[in-house]
Amino acid sequence: MRAAILSIGDELTLGQNVDTNSAWLSARLAERSIITVEHRTLCDDRQAIAAGIAELATRCDVLIISGGLGPTADDLTREALGDVMTPGIALEIDDVALRYIASIFSSRGREMPRSNQKQALRPASARMLPNPHGTAPGLAGEVGDCRVFSLPGPPREMQPMFFDHVAPQLITTAPDQVLLTAQVQEFGMGESVAAERLGDLMDRNNNPLVGTTVSDAIVFARIRVHGDARWASTQIEQTVARIEQAWHPYVFGSTGATLAEDVGEMLRHSKTTLAVAESCTGGWLGKMIVDVPKSSDYFIGGFVTYSNAMKSRWLDVPQLLIDQHGAVSLPVAEAMATGALRASGADHAIAITGIAGPDGGTVLKPVGTVHIAIAAQGRAQRAPHSRHFVFPGDRLAIRDRAAKAALQMLRFALIEAPENTPLLWEAASRPSESRVPA
Amino acid sequence: MRAAILSIGDELTLGQNVDTNSAWLSARLAERSIITVEHRTLCDDRQAIAAGIAELATRCDVLIISGGLGPTADDLTREALGDVMTPGIALEIDDVALRYIASIFSSRGREMPRSNQKQALRPASARMLPNPHGTAPGLAGEVGDCRVFSLPGPPREMQPMFFDHVAPQLITTAPDQVLLTAQVQEFGMGESVAAERLGDLMDRNNNPLVGTTVSDAIVFARIRVHGDARWASTQIEQTVARIEQAWHPYVFGSTGATLAEDVGEMLRHSKTTLAVAESCTGGWLGKMIVDVPKSSDYFIGGFVTYSNAMKSRWLDVPQLLIDQHGAVSLPVAEAMATGALRASGADHAIAITGIAGPDGGTVLKPVGTVHIAIAAQGRAQRAPHSRHFVFPGDRLAIRDRAAKAALQMLRFALIEAPENTPLLWEAASRPSESRVPA
Repeated sequence: MRAAILSIGDELTLGQNVDTNSAWLSARLAERSIITVEHRTLCDDRQAIAAGIAELATRCDVLIISGGLGPTADDLTREALGDVMTPGIALEIDDVALRYIASIFSSRGREMPRSNQKQALRPASARMLPNPHGTAPGLAGEVGDCRVFSLPGPPREMQPMFFDHVAPQLITTAPDQVLLTAQVQEFGMGESVAAERLGDLMDRNNNPLVGTTVSDAIVFARIRVHGDARWASTQIEQTVARIEQAWHPYVFGSTGATLAEDVGEMLRHSKTTLAVAESCTGGWLGKMIVDVPKSSDYFIGGFVTYSNAMKSRWLDVPQLLIDQHGAVSLPVAEAMATGALRASGADHAIAITGIAGPDGGTVLKPVGTVHIAIAAQGRAQRAPHSRHFVFPGDRLAIRDRAAKAALQMLRFALIEAPENTPLLWEAASRPSESRVPA
Repeated sequence: MRAAILSIGDELTLGQNVDTNSAWLSARLAERSIITVEHRTLCDDRQAIAAGIAELATRCDVLIISGGLGPTADDLTREALGDVMTPGIALEIDDVALRYIASIFSSRGREMPRSNQKQALRPASARMLPNPHGTAPGLAGEVGDCRVFSLPGPPREMQPMFFDHVAPQLITTAPDQVLLTAQVQEFGMGESVAAERLGDLMDRNNNPLVGTTVSDAIVFARIRVHGDARWASTQIEQTVARIEQAWHPYVFGSTGATLAEDVGEMLRHSKTTLAVAESCTGGWLGKMIVDVPKSSDYFIGGFVTYSNAMKSRWLDVPQLLIDQHGAVSLPVAEAMATGALRASGADHAIAITGIAGPDGGTVLKPVGTVHIAIAAQGRAQRAPHSRHFVFPGDRLAIRDRAAKAALQMLRFALIEAPENTPLLWEAASRPSESRVPA
């Protein structure tokens, strides 16, 4: 079965918004062995949308549309669908939908704005898909041999509607033939090196087919296999295992897991706790850790010591150390980590201090310079372990890489990878920044 | 001039990655009065890419391709471009590009992996676009009357290449006729209410044309006007002013500014400082604030008191208060804010405590319950001001809305908006949670 995905909205074609629905829908279709052959995005123009629907419907078995079902005058997907499905016939009011929309407003103690009435309109040959999360019902119908589903744009309305009313309709015809996908991810090796480690696994005629891609400095190996269900399942398992072995110790987590999830699992398993001290990342590392549900099992909290005064006041970093080495230095990173350990009583602490730019760089410490230290309590009473990086990119990229490198450093420590396992972007330590006892 | 944008990659059509390049490119084209008529995404299939290039080239004046220029076997844009531009003729090695790629590796003290050689290949009729940020040169050439630019996929390589080598080629033919776009943004009113406040400004036959859209709970009014340059410029200014007036006090910042930038500007202007105390957001509020360059001018830092013990230890929140009202309550939020104020010496403090889910909700305090307090030092010695929200959505959405609502609450205080200005998702205060003196 072949699918196409059509996204609607001026905000997309004008580049004011990024379309995330197409990727989400494609992933859900791939899980159901349906290959998406095209994503297309069109602006809020009734004629253009109608032409796009008509054309895509001739080229695929399923067309999923998202967006353009809102209450305002620029929401035109209903009308365009009518132009294709029931040309020349006016849209009909769906009474059930109208009562439901009115009830949403009355339950909030408000009157329904007149504009919301149009959300109850549908082409005569289409049926409504209920939306328990908003005022925009979806639509389903046929254009020729193609089944068309029209879903609201906001992901938290679109996604449940897909699961409840689209997925059950998408049963593939040959249940013994499947398309399976998986991915393996690593952080800290460049893409070329990662690909070289995979060797002939990446030949383009293979089945399973393996490709690599990079997103925000995480390198992914994407695996796709089609064929007999049981054979495909064995193949994909074996391929995942081979890649995980080739990428050790940089590979982390299972499919789709983040570094923070992987590290969190290990902390939970070892019944140890974590605190952080952040400067240039400003809380991003904490945010990544707390993105994981139940992170309260191991995450105690942290300090955002953005000003130097707070590095001393909250973390007891000696003022002398800051004066001597600068706030962005290995000794200060290490003192921040031990300070966070002390202040929190956690078993592990991570500290990050750096220059995220665009200003503040110098010849010796250019923008992108980041020092990261990890410290641990417990039997070993280990001295902090620290690394010096120079990350490329802008303010966001530098800070994102810094937070991820910090998690990878902690992960290396937790799996007892060799301390000298290199990480991409690591700088050779300069003599002026040699370590001092913390 | 009409443009199309073609993105390449299995990771996109399989839904493993979200395409951000198309939006970024469309926005840059719109700034240059070029309308993007279509975004299309295709997988790593040489034939499909070639067919897509050939078809889109007949429908627009400029085609910008991103992705598929990497060093690995699944990077096939070069080959597909050759199939369309110089069918039947092998790709040529570009000596300048080859020497440049080799020099990147030698400058890092490494040998060039063999796979990177293919990045120096180009169709005979195309020219190379230099890439100072990576090993993938771009390509430029013609397909019929359509100018085609092929750029690398990673944004930090693609974006500078667009500015340096694509933008200068895109001078429009009628310099007195322009397409201008602008947007106005608000946080805290629903989209329907925001649209109703705009009235007939939103008629679909208007020029300027105004549409609304929502992204991560920020409501945008998008304005597009075409016509004589001077007239269009006046029109867009007047329309922006009318929308800003209609949306006061929810409207914030100039085009594209974040709430954190807007609040930061005000803090810088008033020479006051800010500290934060976060629980469920885990550092996200601090991250948003530090996303803004030079935020060190006004942001002192903060506490991520994820465990209750740290709320007491770092912020002096009385244990009794937590026992009596729970960690997620107005009194605790207010005590966190005054604690952060005390510990930091900042002029303003924001505190957030809530239940982000998916677990931890109760009947009285469902998932999404968040209490936010702001406190200020100075002449007024005002008591903390706090609000009780129930945000919809998942763990990420709840925390994103919470951090933004916190910034909007501080913004309301800084512009002296009426304290009772309602915010969407605000809950009626329950008797059990009435305020106590902090």
